[in-house]
Amino acid sequence: MHKNKMNQQSSSRPDAENSIGIVTAKSVDITDPLTLACGQVLSEYHLVYETYGELNSDKTNGILICHALSGNHHAAGYYTDDTNEKPGWWHNCIGPGKAIDTNKFFVVVPNNIGGCHGTTGPSSINPDTGKIWGPDFPPLRFRDWVDSQVQLSDHLGIQTWAAIAGGSLGGMQAMRWSLEYPDRLKHCLVIASAMNLSPQNIAFNEMARQAILADPDYCEGRYLEEGKAPTTGLALARMIGHVTYLSQSQLDERFGRDLSAGSFERGNDNPVQFEIESYLKYKGDQFAEDFDANTYMVITRMLDVFDLAREYNDDPVEAFSKATCRYFVASFSTDWRFSPIRSEEIVSALIGANKDVSYLNIETDRGHDGFLSDIPRYTKDLGLYLDNISKEIFAKQVNAGSEDAS
Amino acid sequence: MHKNKMNQQSSSRPDAENSIGIVTAKSVDITDPLTLACGQVLSEYHLVYETYGELNSDKTNGILICHALSGNHHAAGYYTDDTNEKPGWWHNCIGPGKAIDTNKFFVVVPNNIGGCHGTTGPSSINPDTGKIWGPDFPPLRFRDWVDSQVQLSDHLGIQTWAAIAGGSLGGMQAMRWSLEYPDRLKHCLVIASAMNLSPQNIAFNEMARQAILADPDYCEGRYLEEGKAPTTGLALARMIGHVTYLSQSQLDERFGRDLSAGSFERGNDNPVQFEIESYLKYKGDQFAEDFDANTYMVITRMLDVFDLAREYNDDPVEAFSKATCRYFVASFSTDWRFSPIRSEEIVSALIGANKDVSYLNIETDRGHDGFLSDIPRYTKDLGLYLDNISKEIFAKQVNAGSEDAS
Repeated sequence: MHKNKMNQQSSSRPDAENSIGIVTAKSVDITDPLTLACGQVLSEYHLVYETYGELNSDKTNGILICHALSGNHHAAGYYTDDTNEKPGWWHNCIGPGKAIDTNKFFVVVPNNIGGCHGTTGPSSINPDTGKIWGPDFPPLRFRDWVDSQVQLSDHLGIQTWAAIAGGSLGGMQAMRWSLEYPDRLKHCLVIASAMNLSPQNIAFNEMARQAILADPDYCEGRYLEEGKAPTTGLALARMIGHVTYLSQSQLDERFGRDLSAGSFERGNDNPVQFEIESYLKYKGDQFAEDFDANTYMVITRMLDVFDLAREYNDDPVEAFSKATCRYFVASFSTDWRFSPIRSEEIVSALIGANKDVSYLNIETDRGHDGFLSDIPRYTKDLGLYLDNISKEIFAKQVNAGSEDAS
Repeated sequence: MHKNKMNQQSSSRPDAENSIGIVTAKSVDITDPLTLACGQVLSEYHLVYETYGELNSDKTNGILICHALSGNHHAAGYYTDDTNEKPGWWHNCIGPGKAIDTNKFFVVVPNNIGGCHGTTGPSSINPDTGKIWGPDFPPLRFRDWVDSQVQLSDHLGIQTWAAIAGGSLGGMQAMRWSLEYPDRLKHCLVIASAMNLSPQNIAFNEMARQAILADPDYCEGRYLEEGKAPTTGLALARMIGHVTYLSQSQLDERFGRDLSAGSFERGNDNPVQFEIESYLKYKGDQFAEDFDANTYMVITRMLDVFDLAREYNDDPVEAFSKATCRYFVASFSTDWRFSPIRSEEIVSALIGANKDVSYLNIETDRGHDGFLSDIPRYTKDLGLYLDNISKEIFAKQVNAGSEDAS
């Protein structure tokens, strides 16, 4: 199976055998105008992406991966030989011999427009004004992401993706693709996702935005021009989001009521700090160093507004009737951000629309973050599903070969 | 049953028949020093409370109600004849003929020390310095609340409470009472509560505190001296707390994805505002007008640190072994702040300690706020439990009367 093993891996890492190894980001300047759902036009934009594996000769083995809120194009592998470096966000699942097998597939992961890791977004220069977009960056819809990914597909010469996959908000993009460009994908993998946000989801997004807006260094979104950074607000926003990714049982197990400082002794001079507090604060601060507040504002609002079936008479069955691909849907038992019920809604709509759908609900204590975790049944069944896709592709190539020979 | 109907009710209100009517807050200056768990001593303090109903001659029909985080001494009735005025926070349950029947019981509701509705707290003057306590108000423990309520009991001449009851953090106080002063209560009613906070609970409290700390108008807690008010931070803190009081199904039902402003039409000039956002923001702003940020800091930290069994070898069975009262425990099916599992832990410990316990899990979509809601099974069974207490008291009075006569 590993005949075409990539030669990029770093020999010094324990996971070298199944690691994609050292990777380098790529980019393209898209100069075809992109008309956004809001009516504004991006006359040109910069798109950063990574690829793993090799595109086959008839360009049928491409898998497009759509990243989630805090994700980006760096989904697998490492940038350096530093063994302390963390790999890309879906390194568990992408690599030679892994569930998304780079010996078989050509994996493409773009950074979304509106993001903050290289692709044009609020911290980029608006070419029309020569100034940083900041809060004036156009409000986006998921279809804008999909349309820009179509432009990337054209750039790569990929007419039809073997699969488009994503977790959480990435799954929403994958579903939107399957409705708007049904002939450009064969399989749609929707993991820990939902057809729209619940009012509770929206509430958490709004609290996160309020935390950013309340930071005086946000400067109404013009912090870059002002030489400031709303890191306090952004860190709190991330804490508010992060807590919804974790299950109660996972928190109980991992942190319990342990202290990182102080003591429970009665007295004046021993203020306590709980492990869970230190952890969330650390995660928040770390996020605030690396992420852009305006991007957080734009993307959380996109999430709130997203509603797969809105323009299909609010009928998910009618929406999915347009699709021609097969679906793989997965949820995680303790996910309370997008609970299994939200995935079951997708499955029900697909059944109603007479579409092929495989559905897994993975038993785990990892909550919403389950989709990023190395859970045996999850990675195994994801791998089995994709292995069948690669067999389809191989069979077609062989058939095409025999026809040529006849 | 309603022979002794109170004559305080306002005739203009539709609920006049079963309403306690117009009430007035009382107060007392406690001049016996209160030694706090931290070692500091409150040489004197002011305690505000309300009472409903009348104390019987042998002072055996007292019910002490412990309020929750955002509550205070105003648990039932109205302050004015204004029919737009909202009644006290447990008006559903307290009144003539209601579950906590003021025709039978003398109900006492103090505002806790550290609070901000009249009882000595961070916004009071520190008598030792002549300045506002602010952030220097001593860190409290639940036992300090209980000890101050013991002083109030002595002031009222009540040696033994027929019952001590509370919801949420009020239930924690009631449990603490039952361990520290076992001979001073006959029944302990613990509603929507837990023996300690989970790491998820602590996380939400910490995010709320971070929201307050991040507000520049918090002035490190000296906002009153500075003539400022950290209303933005406090409003966000309340939003973060409030969302944990509501169940997902309740939010779905009540708000769904409805908009209060804007539209989903694609375009630039129609930013959406969801109903759930407007609601939480309104609730947050309303709270910030009426509550003190330092009180919020003090009480959330008390909650984090509270652990009923800590000083009993972390063994809840050992802890409850000290108790002599009977228990009534109630939880609410969709409560995810203090889920039914947390109440079941209390019940299991009571069973282990060979104590009498009645346990109800109320099916409702009202989440944690179920304990404040008018849910038929809840109010009916709470009323039945208390009715039996009143019969015990009456039987003892009759027996005592016969003995006197014999």
